[in-house]
Amino acid sequence: MATPPIADWETLASSKRAQNHSKIPKEWLLPSTITDTISETSSQNVLDIPTSCGLLTPQEVELTERYDATDLISKMSKGEVKSYDVTLAFCKRAAIAHQLVNCLTEIFFEEALARARQCDDYIAKEGRPIGPLHGLPISLKDSFNVKGVQTTIGFVSFLKNPPATSNSYLVDLLFKAGAVFYVKTNLPQTMMTADSHNNVFGRTLNPNNLSLTAGGSTGGEGALVKLRGSVLGLTTDVAGSNRIPALCNGITSLKPTASRVPFGGGVGPGRYGSPTQILPVIGPACHSVRDVELFLKTVLSAKPWEFDENVMNVPWRTVEPVTKPLRFGLIRGHPKRPLHPPIARALHSAATALKAAGHSMVLLDDKIPDLYDTALLAWKYFLLDPKKTPVGHVNASGEPWVPSIMNCRFEELADWKPTLDELWDMNVERAKILRVYKDLMVENKLDAIVMAGYQSTAVSHDTYGVPIYTVLQNILNYPAGIITYLKASKQLDEPFFKADAAYEPPYPPDLIEGAPGAVQVVGRPMQDEELVEIMKVVEDVLKKAS
Amino acid sequence: MATPPIADWETLASSKRAQNHSKIPKEWLLPSTITDTISETSSQNVLDIPTSCGLLTPQEVELTERYDATDLISKMSKGEVKSYDVTLAFCKRAAIAHQLVNCLTEIFFEEALARARQCDDYIAKEGRPIGPLHGLPISLKDSFNVKGVQTTIGFVSFLKNPPATSNSYLVDLLFKAGAVFYVKTNLPQTMMTADSHNNVFGRTLNPNNLSLTAGGSTGGEGALVKLRGSVLGLTTDVAGSNRIPALCNGITSLKPTASRVPFGGGVGPGRYGSPTQILPVIGPACHSVRDVELFLKTVLSAKPWEFDENVMNVPWRTVEPVTKPLRFGLIRGHPKRPLHPPIARALHSAATALKAAGHSMVLLDDKIPDLYDTALLAWKYFLLDPKKTPVGHVNASGEPWVPSIMNCRFEELADWKPTLDELWDMNVERAKILRVYKDLMVENKLDAIVMAGYQSTAVSHDTYGVPIYTVLQNILNYPAGIITYLKASKQLDEPFFKADAAYEPPYPPDLIEGAPGAVQVVGRPMQDEELVEIMKVVEDVLKKAS
Repeated sequence: MATPPIADWETLASSKRAQNHSKIPKEWLLPSTITDTISETSSQNVLDIPTSCGLLTPQEVELTERYDATDLISKMSKGEVKSYDVTLAFCKRAAIAHQLVNCLTEIFFEEALARARQCDDYIAKEGRPIGPLHGLPISLKDSFNVKGVQTTIGFVSFLKNPPATSNSYLVDLLFKAGAVFYVKTNLPQTMMTADSHNNVFGRTLNPNNLSLTAGGSTGGEGALVKLRGSVLGLTTDVAGSNRIPALCNGITSLKPTASRVPFGGGVGPGRYGSPTQILPVIGPACHSVRDVELFLKTVLSAKPWEFDENVMNVPWRTVEPVTKPLRFGLIRGHPKRPLHPPIARALHSAATALKAAGHSMVLLDDKIPDLYDTALLAWKYFLLDPKKTPVGHVNASGEPWVPSIMNCRFEELADWKPTLDELWDMNVERAKILRVYKDLMVENKLDAIVMAGYQSTAVSHDTYGVPIYTVLQNILNYPAGIITYLKASKQLDEPFFKADAAYEPPYPPDLIEGAPGAVQVVGRPMQDEELVEIMKVVEDVLKKAS
Repeated sequence: MATPPIADWETLASSKRAQNHSKIPKEWLLPSTITDTISETSSQNVLDIPTSCGLLTPQEVELTERYDATDLISKMSKGEVKSYDVTLAFCKRAAIAHQLVNCLTEIFFEEALARARQCDDYIAKEGRPIGPLHGLPISLKDSFNVKGVQTTIGFVSFLKNPPATSNSYLVDLLFKAGAVFYVKTNLPQTMMTADSHNNVFGRTLNPNNLSLTAGGSTGGEGALVKLRGSVLGLTTDVAGSNRIPALCNGITSLKPTASRVPFGGGVGPGRYGSPTQILPVIGPACHSVRDVELFLKTVLSAKPWEFDENVMNVPWRTVEPVTKPLRFGLIRGHPKRPLHPPIARALHSAATALKAAGHSMVLLDDKIPDLYDTALLAWKYFLLDPKKTPVGHVNASGEPWVPSIMNCRFEELADWKPTLDELWDMNVERAKILRVYKDLMVENKLDAIVMAGYQSTAVSHDTYGVPIYTVLQNILNYPAGIITYLKASKQLDEPFFKADAAYEPPYPPDLIEGAPGAVQVVGRPMQDEELVEIMKVVEDVLKKAS
């Protein structure tokens, strides 16, 4: 099949974008005085625009800004507020967010408002909520299937695909629990870079600073949730895609242990049937650890294994809140990716605050396998397809590669070809890594590990590079969450600057001034329940220390 | 390295056997009037010999014959009987069993008796048992490592290996729970046939009929437990190795869901690091479902994930005994491996009895993917090593292949070579199979499946063939157990004979007369706890129907 001429893919993509834009009601469009200032080279912070632009009523501002998902559901379930009003507020705010940071791929406000009415009618008639997510608007990464909505995941060659004829399994489950779906969000070409940028939908910008990346691969969610165009978003994660957008934008997120949340029924960039040891997982992007709990508890209590054959029949366990001092392992980083001053400060401050609160820290850096080598091994698992299926999806349309792809790879693997024989050896190497971490957790009686999720705050577009601090938990299959903490500050960060550190990418204090920092909290496998309780403790300690 | 001359391996093996035999005290040796009658061509049933031979005291007969593990532990924990006496009784009886059916590989009676004294001293001093397995003798398949004991798994080339310097993880766990280890048991060359036969230790015979196979790969355990030379044995299972010996010898067993019982730290015939979808698991061979529960509850309550990094942190869940009617799926078999009359009768009778007890049956044969093709796919997963490591272990000594190897393979795969590319497609094929079974379980609200574990009772040595009825649960990763039920009877089986059935291997009514029948009960993944309760119901119904 001949490659179509270049013009074709550009026309197709621009027609898709126009179609998308047309789903935003005219009265929700921002004035050009605002939109003209939007550019990926502007360092503008746009977080206040949804409130200040005047498009939202005071009630809409309140509904989208003041509550987390737990609060909103409580209000809707008690009848204090209607799902229709909540949904309308988030539709409007998502439309505004999209005009600021280009975070949406698919818009289906009408269907969402009809569904919200259904929820309101249900509660009026039955006197009780539909389920634990009654009436809650939930946004999704584009890779989820929602019946009647197209799933292109940013490949031009997928623009010819018809709308989905069935839901992702998790969408089915959440729908039964009362959810309202209204938008899908942007992601990178192939999903394997940290810049949510593709040739169909363009690039998502970071609302804290438009010249910084919104992260990826669930960057659309990260930016949308940060702008409070969504209160709960669904992300996927195989190397950090749940956590990178959370730390870049400054929100809360969690990547659970694999095979607990149903992953099936969506669209992926790769080939099915990978013999990998690294399974992709779904987790929430949100504003509070209790919303993480709400999501996980809802999913794991709904017999998710009846939706997806790859989910383990392990229901949610109720664990008691933490009452005793916790023991944390502390990982301070790798010389090839030293922590930039703002993150070194955030981690130092978090560890100090946790110790001050009575918890203990065990330094692990000298005891763990080389983090860079571990990430390199993980990358080999991502390159196991001899057919290079994602490359085929790009080449099928003649669209070019987005620039960040070249930056999110290991030079060491440029000529690497996967073989069955080496896969056996890779599995042995992984098993050894697993054993070291398990032994460290057991011998030191660790409840969790605290570390960075990335060496920096959000960085300039297309410079993020390989995510060695998040892919670790994927290759280990340990659950891990992000809590936003502190902000880059030239002045405060200065004592953490090391002249001899090989900062990669370069450390640009002026550029990132004010960008959110974060810490990552890593739990033990299958102990997602315990991790949630531990993250509540960390969240609380860091809130007080902020 | 040149292959050593044939004489070498035979000398090595015979010296190992002599060394083994010398560990049996002279006063425990059977008279030649008995041992002279032992032969793999004799159809003799030797089950009564341990009692009738006069080597065991009446108390030893009682301790080994009258109780299950649950009973014995209760007695020892209350101080009603000493672990030393129980251990001595089982050591003696295991020695007798070995002289009848050649079931042992390693004998360490002295160490066991010293350990038993330790248990007795503990209870005398502390006033409480060491743990939930206080003082219980447990036998193990040769592939487990026990510190100070050699692990050759029947490879002549492994005879040069020094004794193990550490325990298998499960051995460590069970030791802490109070177990006493005293013997390791026989298995097949490469572990991939159903005849426990190798060139080091020879062939294990079936105590019900010496001319029949004891099954494999944990055939030593099957025969030893049946002869009550052990009350609880540790087996492994990747294609049926836990269940085949149970159904061949007539005992109870269960293969749990993978990654719950620690598997690591032992010796395998293959290469580490397989990218397979079929994980080997460990399960018990015993005499009652409540002993299965004792084993699983003990292991899963002991934080097994702290012993083995591949175990999931999913503790034992206490589930209520079954009080409502159960819904069973029923699989009646495949035309390429039709059920022989004794097993067709056992399954029919079991289904009838379960229905009479108020439970329901849903026929699944027309709804499931082709069982033979599923087994063929499983076999491909077993052949994924381009280095053919087990072949190397055989060739390293010049020992010949045991005959059953040629019979336990798919002709279709004679020239098949694994490739990374096909492995992706295999995984897709497996995923489809998983989905069909999951949908059947959910849509029909099934609690479990009842089916045969093999098309026949135990068959003649070296004729077992490919185990399509047990490997199914490995490729699905569904837990499954065996309950012995009825016995082959020419007369009663006659109505179940089908003249046009392609019995494979041939159906020899005279040869198998009196051999134990069995049914297999298959649970849902990770619901090992529920399966135990369901198996109690089946055990009870079948006991009444026997």
